[in-house]
Amino acid sequence: MKQMATMSLMVLLLAAGSWAKEAPISEDTQACLECHATVHAGSLEDWKKGRMARITPAEAMKKPQAERRVSFDHLSDSLKNVVVGCAECHTLNSKKHPDSFEHNGYQVHVVVSPDDCATCHPVERKEYDQNLMAHAYGNLKNNAVYQDLANSVNSQQSFSGGRLSYADANEATDADSCFSCHGTQVKPQGTVERETDFGEMSFPVLSGWPNQGVGRINPDGSKGACTSCHPRHQYSIAVARKPYTCSQCHKGPDVPAYPVYSVSKHGNIFSSSAQSSSWDFEAVPWTVGKDFTAPTCAACHVSLLMSTDGSTVAKRTHQMNDRLDERLFGLIYAHPHPASPDTTLIRNKAGLPLPTELTGEPSSHYLIDKNEQERREANMQQVCLACHSSEWVQGHFERLENTVQTTNAMTLTATQILLSVWDKGMARGLAQKDSIFNEAIEKMWVEQWLFYANSTRLASAMGGADYGVFANGRWQLSKNLGEMLDWTRFHERK
Amino acid sequence: MKQMATMSLMVLLLAAGSWAKEAPISEDTQACLECHATVHAGSLEDWKKGRMARITPAEAMKKPQAERRVSFDHLSDSLKNVVVGCAECHTLNSKKHPDSFEHNGYQVHVVVSPDDCATCHPVERKEYDQNLMAHAYGNLKNNAVYQDLANSVNSQQSFSGGRLSYADANEATDADSCFSCHGTQVKPQGTVERETDFGEMSFPVLSGWPNQGVGRINPDGSKGACTSCHPRHQYSIAVARKPYTCSQCHKGPDVPAYPVYSVSKHGNIFSSSAQSSSWDFEAVPWTVGKDFTAPTCAACHVSLLMSTDGSTVAKRTHQMNDRLDERLFGLIYAHPHPASPDTTLIRNKAGLPLPTELTGEPSSHYLIDKNEQERREANMQQVCLACHSSEWVQGHFERLENTVQTTNAMTLTATQILLSVWDKGMARGLAQKDSIFNEAIEKMWVEQWLFYANSTRLASAMGGADYGVFANGRWQLSKNLGEMLDWTRFHERK
Amino acid sequence: MKQMATMSLMVLLLAAGSWAKEAPISEDTQACLECHATVHAGSLEDWKKGRMARITPAEAMKKPQAERRVSFDHLSDSLKNVVVGCAECHTLNSKKHPDSFEHNGYQVHVVVSPDDCATCHPVERKEYDQNLMAHAYGNLKNNAVYQDLANSVNSQQSFSGGRLSYADANEATDADSCFSCHGTQVKPQGTVERETDFGEMSFPVLSGWPNQGVGRINPDGSKGACTSCHPRHQYSIAVARKPYTCSQCHKGPDVPAYPVYSVSKHGNIFSSSAQSSSWDFEAVPWTVGKDFTAPTCAACHVSLLMSTDGSTVAKRTHQMNDRLDERLFGLIYAHPHPASPDTTLIRNKAGLPLPTELTGEPSSHYLIDKNEQERREANMQQVCLACHSSEWVQGHFERLENTVQTTNAMTLTATQILLSVWDKGMARGLAQKDSIFNEAIEKMWVEQWLFYANSTRLASAMGGADYGVFANGRWQLSKNLGEMLDWTRFHERK
Repeated sequence: MKQMATMSLMVLLLAAGSWAKEAPISEDTQACLECHATVHAGSLEDWKKGRMARITPAEAMKKPQAERRVSFDHLSDSLKNVVVGCAECHTLNSKKHPDSFEHNGYQVHVVVSPDDCATCHPVERKEYDQNLMAHAYGNLKNNAVYQDLANSVNSQQSFSGGRLSYADANEATDADSCFSCHGTQVKPQGTVERETDFGEMSFPVLSGWPNQGVGRINPDGSKGACTSCHPRHQYSIAVARKPYTCSQCHKGPDVPAYPVYSVSKHGNIFSSSAQSSSWDFEAVPWTVGKDFTAPTCAACHVSLLMSTDGSTVAKRTHQMNDRLDERLFGLIYAHPHPASPDTTLIRNKAGLPLPTELTGEPSSHYLIDKNEQERREANMQQVCLACHSSEWVQGHFERLENTVQTTNAMTLTATQILLSVWDKGMARGLAQKDSIFNEAIEKMWVEQWLFYANSTRLASAMGGADYGVFANGRWQLSKNLGEMLDWTRFHERK
Repeated sequence: MKQMATMSLMVLLLAAGSWAKEAPISEDTQACLECHATVHAGSLEDWKKGRMARITPAEAMKKPQAERRVSFDHLSDSLKNVVVGCAECHTLNSKKHPDSFEHNGYQVHVVVSPDDCATCHPVERKEYDQNLMAHAYGNLKNNAVYQDLANSVNSQQSFSGGRLSYADANEATDADSCFSCHGTQVKPQGTVERETDFGEMSFPVLSGWPNQGVGRINPDGSKGACTSCHPRHQYSIAVARKPYTCSQCHKGPDVPAYPVYSVSKHGNIFSSSAQSSSWDFEAVPWTVGKDFTAPTCAACHVSLLMSTDGSTVAKRTHQMNDRLDERLFGLIYAHPHPASPDTTLIRNKAGLPLPTELTGEPSSHYLIDKNEQERREANMQQVCLACHSSEWVQGHFERLENTVQTTNAMTLTATQILLSVWDKGMARGLAQKDSIFNEAIEKMWVEQWLFYANSTRLASAMGGADYGVFANGRWQLSKNLGEMLDWTRFHERK
Repeated sequence: MKQMATMSLMVLLLAAGSWAKEAPISEDTQACLECHATVHAGSLEDWKKGRMARITPAEAMKKPQAERRVSFDHLSDSLKNVVVGCAECHTLNSKKHPDSFEHNGYQVHVVVSPDDCATCHPVERKEYDQNLMAHAYGNLKNNAVYQDLANSVNSQQSFSGGRLSYADANEATDADSCFSCHGTQVKPQGTVERETDFGEMSFPVLSGWPNQGVGRINPDGSKGACTSCHPRHQYSIAVARKPYTCSQCHKGPDVPAYPVYSVSKHGNIFSSSAQSSSWDFEAVPWTVGKDFTAPTCAACHVSLLMSTDGSTVAKRTHQMNDRLDERLFGLIYAHPHPASPDTTLIRNKAGLPLPTELTGEPSSHYLIDKNEQERREANMQQVCLACHSSEWVQGHFERLENTVQTTNAMTLTATQILLSVWDKGMARGLAQKDSIFNEAIEKMWVEQWLFYANSTRLASAMGGADYGVFANGRWQLSKNLGEMLDWTRFHERK
């Protein structure tokens, strides 16, 4: 099949229209395209619309430093001077990929991993590895408390003798639930023969597949999936810079970052203006005010930002918390960010793998210190200051700090009710070595911090109005306490 | 009024700009435009922007088969060679329309029906009649169990003697509530005289009006409203292909298809990319990868899809479940799709008009069989395979099937609690011939399947992450069981 | 600094691209731009993209009346013939601004107020002052009942001795919560020295800052913030006309106007079509059908609308309730709009500052009368009639009126349960001079009207389908009554 005439392929590709005529494609990729212009052709079309199908790494590297999207020092000639096509990724490092399989004379792997992408983007790949998100699989799977929470969500329950009992969740449910965002562990499980248009062929069977979660454990052992944010075969920077990408995992009541953003002033301006010709989501570097007039998630948390005077507003980082001093969501109390992205190392004084005590005191040994917090906050404030005055920024951050304090306090009050419930034997908790998430009153407690305190803090951080009030905000923080109290009253009337 | 000079009308129309200069308009439609360039002129402007105001049916029919938007065999010359204007629809088949009224010398009917549209689109109209949606009025109105549910929603309740009692819902409330999506029954109720700019005129009075629900019963007896999805006077295919159209009725907690889609990878790519010039929502046929790089609702469920190699990926269908093997939402348990779109025929073994028993066993006699399920699933998978590998697709559908099983099991557990509640006389249910939806504990049970199991299944079907976890997903499925159990405990303490 | 060469500034500005070359900029503004091309340059870029950076007031005034965006009679020559730049607003009326401070030889104030904007837009500013929104700060702050509600939301609660107690909310929380939309009171609190790139400089300290709430009390005593809807430094009419602007404060469960709109037919057409080249969000006047084919919030409530025949459909108004006869949301019962935008004047017969009794009877003396209601309803219906027939419009409004009646009745039922709860001493209410919002059962009552009745009415008003049914609609209105009743049953079992 490798011998196919390049001429006829070119004709085929040109017929499809929008694709650059002169892009130098490797022979190997041409062989892929030959069949895949028909089989799963949608992917090929998608790829043709992307930048990587048009620009060779060598050309990409010629750009001035600030405009570069690649960060390699060296690259083999065979990769440098062809566009990045099917073969360049799916046959790369094939010996490191246990999912590689023989496919028409090539060793092909299905799951392209961050280690593959690192060939051209080593800096970004390394930063991402310092990102909590890269560790999202293990941080959930290997933390006994979080696993207890996950089980309370995913397990099937049965009713008999007036009681509910939990069975263990099955793997498919876990993969479809928590791990759809956190990432699954993808493992080769042998091969399967399949009848195709080209005769019988052999394909690998993968457990945990499909998945594009941010902390996916790939067959080559690497963590993450660049396509989480740069989806499918365009690997678009524009898509990653739009808030819809983040909304895939950050929309629900446990982490309503996207809904909050969408009702913020920034979100309004984005929604109202971003389609206008004066916004440019492709520009590298991204110039504040010129390329965009309100930040998206990426602008504040990731992108290389410049000012029109040529100065750097913020350096690009794929370690998302490099501009964040406090972890506002996901845990029982807000607290300084963990020092290591592997949070399974953390133990609080009570011996639990949590960044704070149940009563809120931070497990400081495992968290970043005051200096590092200040450095990160300063990083973020540089972004704010690109448009806002120092007074504005200071006032904003003071309010956020107040919100952190008050929401932590409202969580503590809920915790005190729960401790009293456990103490009086109305529910079974830590002392009974029972799950702390499996009874209704415990789930009310969870919602206090996982839904309402989180939502209130995100609203405070981004200016999301009602998400700090009636939309899972302070109203619910307050109402939930009253309902927990009523629960104890009704329960006491045995 | 019919004698108005065509010349001056043309001037008027041209002044408005974007409209095709040469479109041949019938004399009758010209007469309509004469006044309606002033009266309700917004509608006229809307029409002028649509394709039907620019292309005659004869021209539309000249297109190659795959590019055709019309499906008629024969059409009268009077209709064939003029664009489809006011008169072509609103005076068509006037004898079949009991809402026809004399209007400046014409017999005009207000409610243009699918039978009118079938003049040019007979195939689509016939397919739509096989759609559950076409039967949405009767399937709700003429099913005793669903009517019981509707009443529990729409009835006014009063409080006296420490008890709540339900009054019957009034017609206006029903029309504003369930039937706003399901469709009302529109019936002529005589005429009314009204003073207008052109003197006193007579107009029909219609009950159940206005409405654009999918199963509207029209005065001519036909079912449905093509404008549900092809809205107002542009009848746009582009609008129908965008997910916002489906969101009108598929956004709430009972059927969160749109929210789930919006956080899926497909939804993200749509939101991030669809405004770019490389997407074409008007193209017929719709070519995967070329015209769009991620499917919308219509792509998976309705549209004629082609591959860039010219092969057909999926045939157009307006029977929305032709690519669906299981009904995932709306009912107590997921089950194979009903064989007939008229679901009032169904009886389970207990004699209830439900596609399953209360304990989940399917009423198989009324449902499609395994072969038909496989045929429909294969239809859908052809769409997936246009971009995804066989392994990907298989893994995805296996997870969905697991989700169907586990969510059905969680509904069964809730049902068992409810049966025990009825059994112990804590609430009045089937045995007491009482409504099964009118008490708080019964409504908790409803939310188990109507909200949480549905949401979880839709999230599994489309990759909607948190809608299967914390956003009315498995978290709520689990929490609700605990709360139902607590309810019984508090109740037992009498 | 004032002496900077205009030439080099022009070069700088031109380098940034999209900005008009010939815009006459005042010398004072040129002085601002000199430094602020570097400091907070994002704002400057934003301003350059707006109309006010390109058109002088004199040019704006030359437009025919219907096309004018300005409404002044007289304007000083110094303002008339330069574009509206930094200095024109931030140094205007500096003596009236207690937040003015010396800044490089200028008296600059940070908080540009409606009184500043009134220099060119006096008519709009005056209308806005008649808007309830302009009074949103005082209407909340100076109403004892609403303050009680706000406290029940914002206060920290602590748990001890088996009881919850409320502490007073702090100012930062209030500003971050209710007043983020209602507007804060912004007050100068002295100055602070700050090290800058240009040496040490002095800046004002403002309490209640930052804030862009609709009823902000500005240092000059004026009410409101034009940037609430015309955000940042473009002051765009296009942004204000898009529903995302309104969604900033009208999205939560207490006032889900935006979500309801988004699933209405109008919202669908907007979302599906508004990016197409046939929509023009900048046009003044705004021509129905030509510039847009479905109304946004602004079209129905604010904008000057024309018909293609040149007749006026609706006059521009910044008094948002000039087209609204009833207040549908925010209060316990729907009722005719207050006669004065200052609602602190209102007293019901029970002496409470509420527009109705607790049992629903309107405090008519303080509300608009039947004639005014009809005038306002007619204003709105003129908008509807631009596209819809009289029958359609009448049918729609009859259903809305039915919904007002039935939702008020469902609120009354909840109120009767609450009165009985208070009467039996299960909770402490008015008679005990206790807060009527601080106990769980009281919060259930609040959700009956603030969430569910409001949502149902908004759905009825705009055609928002499930927001009147399962998405915080009639289902929740009905379920909540059952849960309130169960609460009393469980409570009685002491």
